[in-house]
Amino acid sequence: MWYNQLECKKKKEQNQMKRIAVLTSGGDAPGMNAAIRAVVRQAISEGMEVFGIYDGYAGMVAGEIYPLDAASVGDIISRGGTFLHSARYPEFAQLEGQLKGIEQLKKHGIEGVVVIGGDGSYHGAMRLTEHGFPAIGLPGTIDNDIVGTDFTIGFDTAVTTAMDAIDKIRDTSSSHRRTFVVEVMGRNAGDIALWAGIATGADEIIIPEEGFKMEDIVASIKAGYEHGKKHNIIVLAEGVMSAAEFGQKLKEAGDTSDLRVTELGHIQRGGSPTARDRVLASRMGAHAVKLLKQGIGGVAVGIRNEKMVENPILGTAEEGALFSLTADGKIVVNNPHKADLELAKLNKSLS
Amino acid sequence: MWYNQLECKKKKEQNQMKRIAVLTSGGDAPGMNAAIRAVVRQAISEGMEVFGIYDGYAGMVAGEIYPLDAASVGDIISRGGTFLHSARYPEFAQLEGQLKGIEQLKKHGIEGVVVIGGDGSYHGAMRLTEHGFPAIGLPGTIDNDIVGTDFTIGFDTAVTTAMDAIDKIRDTSSSHRRTFVVEVMGRNAGDIALWAGIATGADEIIIPEEGFKMEDIVASIKAGYEHGKKHNIIVLAEGVMSAAEFGQKLKEAGDTSDLRVTELGHIQRGGSPTARDRVLASRMGAHAVKLLKQGIGGVAVGIRNEKMVENPILGTAEEGALFSLTADGKIVVNNPHKADLELAKLNKSLS
Amino acid sequence: MWYNQLECKKKKEQNQMKRIAVLTSGGDAPGMNAAIRAVVRQAISEGMEVFGIYDGYAGMVAGEIYPLDAASVGDIISRGGTFLHSARYPEFAQLEGQLKGIEQLKKHGIEGVVVIGGDGSYHGAMRLTEHGFPAIGLPGTIDNDIVGTDFTIGFDTAVTTAMDAIDKIRDTSSSHRRTFVVEVMGRNAGDIALWAGIATGADEIIIPEEGFKMEDIVASIKAGYEHGKKHNIIVLAEGVMSAAEFGQKLKEAGDTSDLRVTELGHIQRGGSPTARDRVLASRMGAHAVKLLKQGIGGVAVGIRNEKMVENPILGTAEEGALFSLTADGKIVVNNPHKADLELAKLNKSLS
Amino acid sequence: MWYNQLECKKKKEQNQMKRIAVLTSGGDAPGMNAAIRAVVRQAISEGMEVFGIYDGYAGMVAGEIYPLDAASVGDIISRGGTFLHSARYPEFAQLEGQLKGIEQLKKHGIEGVVVIGGDGSYHGAMRLTEHGFPAIGLPGTIDNDIVGTDFTIGFDTAVTTAMDAIDKIRDTSSSHRRTFVVEVMGRNAGDIALWAGIATGADEIIIPEEGFKMEDIVASIKAGYEHGKKHNIIVLAEGVMSAAEFGQKLKEAGDTSDLRVTELGHIQRGGSPTARDRVLASRMGAHAVKLLKQGIGGVAVGIRNEKMVENPILGTAEEGALFSLTADGKIVVNNPHKADLELAKLNKSLS
Repeated sequence: MWYNQLECKKKKEQNQMKRIAVLTSGGDAPGMNAAIRAVVRQAISEGMEVFGIYDGYAGMVAGEIYPLDAASVGDIISRGGTFLHSARYPEFAQLEGQLKGIEQLKKHGIEGVVVIGGDGSYHGAMRLTEHGFPAIGLPGTIDNDIVGTDFTIGFDTAVTTAMDAIDKIRDTSSSHRRTFVVEVMGRNAGDIALWAGIATGADEIIIPEEGFKMEDIVASIKAGYEHGKKHNIIVLAEGVMSAAEFGQKLKEAGDTSDLRVTELGHIQRGGSPTARDRVLASRMGAHAVKLLKQGIGGVAVGIRNEKMVENPILGTAEEGALFSLTADGKIVVNNPHKADLELAKLNKSLS
Repeated sequence: MWYNQLECKKKKEQNQMKRIAVLTSGGDAPGMNAAIRAVVRQAISEGMEVFGIYDGYAGMVAGEIYPLDAASVGDIISRGGTFLHSARYPEFAQLEGQLKGIEQLKKHGIEGVVVIGGDGSYHGAMRLTEHGFPAIGLPGTIDNDIVGTDFTIGFDTAVTTAMDAIDKIRDTSSSHRRTFVVEVMGRNAGDIALWAGIATGADEIIIPEEGFKMEDIVASIKAGYEHGKKHNIIVLAEGVMSAAEFGQKLKEAGDTSDLRVTELGHIQRGGSPTARDRVLASRMGAHAVKLLKQGIGGVAVGIRNEKMVENPILGTAEEGALFSLTADGKIVVNNPHKADLELAKLNKSLS
Repeated sequence: MWYNQLECKKKKEQNQMKRIAVLTSGGDAPGMNAAIRAVVRQAISEGMEVFGIYDGYAGMVAGEIYPLDAASVGDIISRGGTFLHSARYPEFAQLEGQLKGIEQLKKHGIEGVVVIGGDGSYHGAMRLTEHGFPAIGLPGTIDNDIVGTDFTIGFDTAVTTAMDAIDKIRDTSSSHRRTFVVEVMGRNAGDIALWAGIATGADEIIIPEEGFKMEDIVASIKAGYEHGKKHNIIVLAEGVMSAAEFGQKLKEAGDTSDLRVTELGHIQRGGSPTARDRVLASRMGAHAVKLLKQGIGGVAVGIRNEKMVENPILGTAEEGALFSLTADGKIVVNNPHKADLELAKLNKSLS
Repeated sequence: MWYNQLECKKKKEQNQMKRIAVLTSGGDAPGMNAAIRAVVRQAISEGMEVFGIYDGYAGMVAGEIYPLDAASVGDIISRGGTFLHSARYPEFAQLEGQLKGIEQLKKHGIEGVVVIGGDGSYHGAMRLTEHGFPAIGLPGTIDNDIVGTDFTIGFDTAVTTAMDAIDKIRDTSSSHRRTFVVEVMGRNAGDIALWAGIATGADEIIIPEEGFKMEDIVASIKAGYEHGKKHNIIVLAEGVMSAAEFGQKLKEAGDTSDLRVTELGHIQRGGSPTARDRVLASRMGAHAVKLLKQGIGGVAVGIRNEKMVENPILGTAEEGALFSLTADGKIVVNNPHKADLELAKLNKSLS
C-alpha cells in the first residue's frame, strides 16, 4: 500500500501512462548517466515518451524540461557525472515549490517521474508521492546509505576509485616505511571505507558505526613495524573525523611512526562507472519504467538478493515503507541503512 | 549431511584442526591470490598453521607443499594470477593419484585443504571428500559457471576487462561507422557476454543459452545504420562459436556493413582484481578456514544474497549437494548454473 | 621552400587567413579529438573561423562541412576516436576528386585546411599542396610510421593499451608457466612492439626491421624455463606475420612449451588518450593554426627534440620535404621512418 | 672532465669494473623498480656482479648491501615504489657519513654505484664523486626538476595519475557547475601542473614560474559561466601555495561560484609506471651500467632529444657539469631546470 493510494490506484486501473520524465538530484554519482539511458531507452521500447528534467528539482520548478530520444543517450553509459546536471534546491521542501513542480510536470503532460539520487532526491520523491503524483526513486549515491537496497548506483565505482588510490599510496608508503591515514567519503556510512579497506588489505578501518581506541591503534602500528611490516595503512571514513584531525590525535596518543595523512576527496564522485554500476543502473532504470508503465508510483527501487525490488517511499514500517511521517510532519526513516559489520570483523582477522 | 559423514563428524567433535593447506587449480582467475591471502591470514588468526600446495593437484601428489606465513602473502591482494601456480592434472581423476595426494597431505600433518578453482578443482575436492579427507571448494573462475554461488571469484574482473576493451573498440567503431563482433570468454556460459554487453550498451549479445537468427541480426544492423547509429557492436560468447565463424555467417546472411571481428583472448584471465573480486575472495577464503576450524569439510563455499553459504560437494540433490555420483561412478551436476536470461531481455529493450 | 611556392607566398604576404577547416582521415588514433580541439580553440583565439569536415576527404568532396565553435569541442580532449569520423576515400587519389574537394572548400570560403591522419591523410595533403591549396598535415596514427616526427599522435596510447594487455597476459602466463605470442599492431613498423615489449619486460620482441631465427627462439624459450623462468612472452609486430602463423612455425621448429597465441586487435586503436598524446596533439593542433595564420601551407608538423617542427610535404629531399614526385608522378618517401633499433638491442640485454 | 679526474681516469684505463651496486634515495617515484631491474639485468649481461643497497644512503653506511640476480628483479618492471626502499639520511651531508659509506662499498668489493633519485640522491652522488668514488646519477623523481635531462623517471606517471584524477573531478564539477582548485605536486616546479593541466583542458594553470593576478582569475571564472561553461577547473602547482589558501584568496578576491578545493596528495607518487617511464627507466639503467663498465663515474644520465646523454655531476658550468662548489663548499646548481613556459602560453589559447 502506498500513500494517497486512491489516486495511484486510479492510475493503475487506467494503466496508460504515456509520458514520463527523469531527473537527477543531490550529489552526483557514477552510473547516473547509465540509469538515465535505461529510463529513456526502456520508455521508448514500451511506447512511452520521455522527458529530461535538467538541474534536479530546481529545474522541475523552473520548467527546464525537454524531450529525450534514443540517440540523446547514445554512448553515455560509460560516462561519469550526470548530463541532466544536479543541483541542491532546499525550496522543494516547501509546499509551494512542490506544487509548482507538479504544475510544470502536468503542463508538459508528464504523468510519472523517475528521480535518481540520494536523500535529497528521496525526500522530494516522498513529497510528490504525498501529493499523489507518481514518482519512482532510484538510489543514486556513492555512499550506499540509502534504505531499501543492498547497493546504490555509484557505490562500486567509488569503492574502486578509493581502492586504486590506496593501491598507489601503498606503493609509496612501502618505499618509505610510512603510516598513512587515508580519508574516504561516505558521509555517515562506513561502507566505502569497509569495502575499500578490505580490498586494499588495510591495516585498520575506522568507521562511524564502530568505536575504536586510539591507544590500540598506536600499539598496533608499533607492533606491525616490529614484526617487519613495510607500511601501515589506516582507511578512515569521513563520518568519523577528518584525516588531519585523526593524524593529530594519533600523534597525541603516542604514535612515533613516519605519518602522513591524505583525503582522497572529490575524485571519488567521478569517473567512468564500473561494470557493476552500469549493470545495476541499467536494471534499475528499466525497472522503474516498467513500474510506471503499470501505473505504479510512490515506490523506490532497490536490489535485494540480485533481484529488483520496490518499497513504498512513504507509509508505515510494517508496509515496508522507507519513510513515515509523524503527526507533525517530521520524517522518520523506518529501517535505516546499516554497514555490514561482518566486514569490519573480517578485516581484523586478515590485516 | 555430507559424504563419509562419519569421518567428518569425528573431526568435528574433536574440533581441533591445527594445520591446513591451500591450492589453486584449473584456469587461473583474478582474485585467487586474494583468496589465498585470506586463507593464510585467517588461519593464522585462528591459531592454525597453513601450507601452500604449488601447481595444484599435481603438486599435491608430488609433495610441492611449503609453509606460508602472514608475510608470504603481503601485498598480493592486488595481483592477478596465482602465486601458487596452477596446472592441469588429469591423473587426479584416478584413484591412485588421489591416494598419493592424501598420503602427501597426511605426511605433512595437514588435516584439511582449501581448493580454489573451477570444475577441475571441484572434481578433485569431490574425490578428497569421497575418501573422507576434509576439503573445502572455493569457486575461482572467470566464467561464473560454478554451481552453488551467485558469483565466482574472477568473474567481475573478467567482465571489467571485457568492458574496458569493448569501450575502446566502440571508440574506433564509431570513428569508422563499423560493425564489430567481439568474442568474449565464458566457456559454455553466457555470463561474461551478458554483463559486458549490458555494461557497454552492446547492440546484440549472443549467448549459448539462447537461440538467435542470423537474418534478424542482419536486419537489425541495417536498421540501426538507417536510423543514424554510428556503430554496431555484437558481443559474442565463445560458447556459441568463434568470432571469425560468426562474422563469416553474418556476411553469408547478407550483412553489407563494414565488419570487423575480434577475439579478446587471454587478457580476460589476468589483471589486478576488482574491488568486488577482492572482497569476495577475502570473504570466501576466511569463511573456508572457519569451516575447517569447526571440522567441517566436504563443502563448497558460495555467496547467496550477499551472504556466505556452503553446500555439500557430494550428496543428493535434496541435501543441496553440488554433485551426485551414479551407481557406476558417473558425476551428475545437481543444479547446473544458469545465466540470468532477464539480462538478455533487458539488453533487447535498451539497445 | 614548398611546392607552388608562389601561391603560398602570396597568401603569406597577405597574411590574412580568416577561415580554416580541419578533418581526420585514415585509421583513427587516440588523440585525434584532442588535436581537433586544439585546432578549433587556437583558431578562435587567433580570431579565425573554423569548420569541421566530416568523414575525411569523402566528406570534403561531398561538402560535409560545418562550423565549429569553442563549445563544440568541450570535454572531447579525453575521448578516443574522432568525432569528425574518418573514412577511406581512394577517389581522392584522382585529380577529379581533388578538384571537387578544393571547390567545396572555396565554396565555404575556407582558405586553409588541417588534415590529421596517417599515410592517406598525408597523400591527400600532398595533392592539395600540389594544387596550391594551403594544407597542413598532422601525424595522427598509432603506428608511429610517419616521416618528419619523432612521435605520432596516438602512438603512446596504443603502446599503453598493448602494455596493459601484456601485463594481464603475464599474470596468467605466469600462473600456468606458459609461452605467449602476443601480436601487436604497427603495420610495417616495429615501434609499438619495441616500446610495449620493453615496457613489459618481454622475453623476445620480433619486428619487421630485424631478422630472427626461429631455432634461436626455441632454444631461448627452453633455456628460460630451465633457468627457472615462470613464463615466456614474445611480442610480435603484425608486420612480421600473424601470431597464429608464428605459433605454428615455433612448434615446427621444435618448441615443446605450453604455447598460446593471441592478437590484441582493435583495442589498440581506441581508448582515452594518454597525457603524452593529449599534450602532443594539443601542441600540434595549435602549431598548425599558427602556421596557417601566417599563410604557411604545404607543410607537415612534427615533434623533434621536444620542439614543434615543420617540413615541406612535397619537394626535394634536400629541402627536407617528406615526399618527392618522380617525373611520371610516382610518390617517393624521402626519409622513411625507421624504428629505433637501439631499443631492440636494449631488450636483448634486459630480458 | 670530471672532479678527481685522475682517479676516474685510472679506473677507465683499467676498464675492468666487475662489481657495482644500486640504490634509490629521496622521495620514491614510479619507474624506480624498472630502473633497478635494468641496472641488474644489464650488469649481468655485461658479466658484472651487482648488489642492492637497501634504504638509500642510510643503508650504504649501515652496510645493508646484498647481491641481486636476474630473478630477484623478475616482474618488478610494472610495480610502483622501490623494492630497495628509500630513506632520508641527512647525515650523508657530513664527511664522516660519506667515508663510512665508501668504506662499506669497498668492503663488499663494489667499484661503482648507481644512485637513483632526486636532489638528495644527486647531492650524495656528488659527494661520492668528490671523493673519487665512481657514482652515476639517474634522475628518479616525479617532479621533473632535475638538471641535465628533458624528463625524469616517474614524471610521466605522476602526470598520468593527476590527469586521471582531474578527469574524474571534471565529471562531478560538470554535474554541479562547480569551480575546482586542484593542487598537484611538483615542489618548486610547475611541470606536473602544466602537463596535467593541458592534458585535462584546465581553465587555468597556476605555476610558481609565472605570476598571476587573482582578480583576473575571478573575472575569467565569471566570464566562463556567463558564456555557458559547465565547470571551471584550476590546476595549481603546490609550489605556489596550498589549494585551501588559494581557494580562500579566490573568495576574498570576489569569486562567487560554487567553489571546491582538493589536494591530490600522495597518490601521485605511486602506481604502476607508464610505458614511457618504464622505457625511460630501462634505457637509463642500462646506460648507467655501460658507463660504469667503461670506468666512467661522476656523471648523471639524462635524456635529450630522445637520446641518452651524460653530464659531469660536479665541475664547471662550461664543462656542462650539473653542480659547482664554491670556495667555501657551497653547492651551486649550474643550469637549473626550467618549466616549459610555452606550455603555459598554449593553455591560455586553448582553455
